[in-house]
Amino acid sequence: MALKLHGVAMSTCTARVLTCLHEKEAEFELVPVNLFAGEHKQPAFLAKNPFGQIPVLEDGDLTLFESRAISAYVAEKFKETGYDLIRHQNPKEAAQVKVWMEVESQQYHPAISPIVYQFFVAPLHGKTPDEAIINENLEKLGKVLDIYEEKLSRSKYLAGDFYSLADLFHLSYTYYFMKTPRANLINDRPHVKAWWEDISSRPAFLKVASGMNFGEEK
Amino acid sequence: MALKLHGVAMSTCTARVLTCLHEKEAEFELVPVNLFAGEHKQPAFLAKNPFGQIPVLEDGDLTLFESRAISAYVAEKFKETGYDLIRHQNPKEAAQVKVWMEVESQQYHPAISPIVYQFFVAPLHGKTPDEAIINENLEKLGKVLDIYEEKLSRSKYLAGDFYSLADLFHLSYTYYFMKTPRANLINDRPHVKAWWEDISSRPAFLKVASGMNFGEEK
Repeated sequence: MALKLHGVAMSTCTARVLTCLHEKEAEFELVPVNLFAGEHKQPAFLAKNPFGQIPVLEDGDLTLFESRAISAYVAEKFKETGYDLIRHQNPKEAAQVKVWMEVESQQYHPAISPIVYQFFVAPLHGKTPDEAIINENLEKLGKVLDIYEEKLSRSKYLAGDFYSLADLFHLSYTYYFMKTPRANLINDRPHVKAWWEDISSRPAFLKVASGMNFGEEK
Repeated sequence: MALKLHGVAMSTCTARVLTCLHEKEAEFELVPVNLFAGEHKQPAFLAKNPFGQIPVLEDGDLTLFESRAISAYVAEKFKETGYDLIRHQNPKEAAQVKVWMEVESQQYHPAISPIVYQFFVAPLHGKTPDEAIINENLEKLGKVLDIYEEKLSRSKYLAGDFYSLADLFHLSYTYYFMKTPRANLINDRPHVKAWWEDISSRPAFLKVASGMNFGEEK
């Protein structure tokens, strides 16, 4: 039975899981959730994820939420097929993948997500992007990227000389960030820029990016 | 060779890893880091963790940071000894542990950590706790705890009827939170309260809690 992913292709968190599924060449069905009708806040969806957020993965009788947890589950379940995202045969490399997955979650995401929100989501609510929030988080993001620049001068990817789930976790938010007027934060750092160009041109992500048109005219 | 954990017993993130090490009955040495002297911002420490944060784990030539990643590494490395924190023999249960580890990271932590910061850390910087920040995050935390209350009415622990790394991740911040005047957020929810009393009375955490005296007179 194929996996069922409930979500929306243009959502950053759905896109994270979609990219992982494509890297693993897993069979799945994307079940659209009508966010504008508030479907994710209705009882049927809340029974799958009480936090009322997309995406949700159903694998038979197993129901999972939180995009990073779903991705880790998919990478583990299909560890023998597709690209190995977790270095499951090398405990030391696997440990570094875990470290840099957490760096994305605890350092990178808290800085980049409010910026992407202000540029793309605030206008949908009729609000002007809040410059103070943007600038405060650009400063945080710059400090994180300084550390990435140094790390990426010593290894091709974050966890080592191999692409992993740690890199993949960065794709969806950075993709939207690169459409803002502040893409220079990435482009001005040569090793970060080379890393971004590399990871964002992988076939698995190109398939996903084609559906990420948030805030654009169709 | 024993593991070396660089950190401070009273720090929430060091306490998270210490609890995990005790659950696994792992041999380790706690190497103190002098935060007041800024040791974590000096080159020797930055070479271990470029983000300049505790804790750091050294296991032979492997150096790891980010407390959740270190804990996951320890739980995996010692999966056959001590208490099984990751349900490694049951993929479905292991998947639910991953989900609720992420819930702690993405839903619970962002709400509880600013509250703990305002009550315990702001005064050290000569500041009065910011009531607006506290109230905004109490509201967020209450919504998360409503979901926990419902979940914990159906299973004894977050990921199922077994204690896991997902529950463990909540211990250190909640321990300090329970010393604030807003502990009622936990105590007013009977299933959350029973869960808290259960997980905080485990011998592995009691050993760690005895060193968690942040903001108290010695």
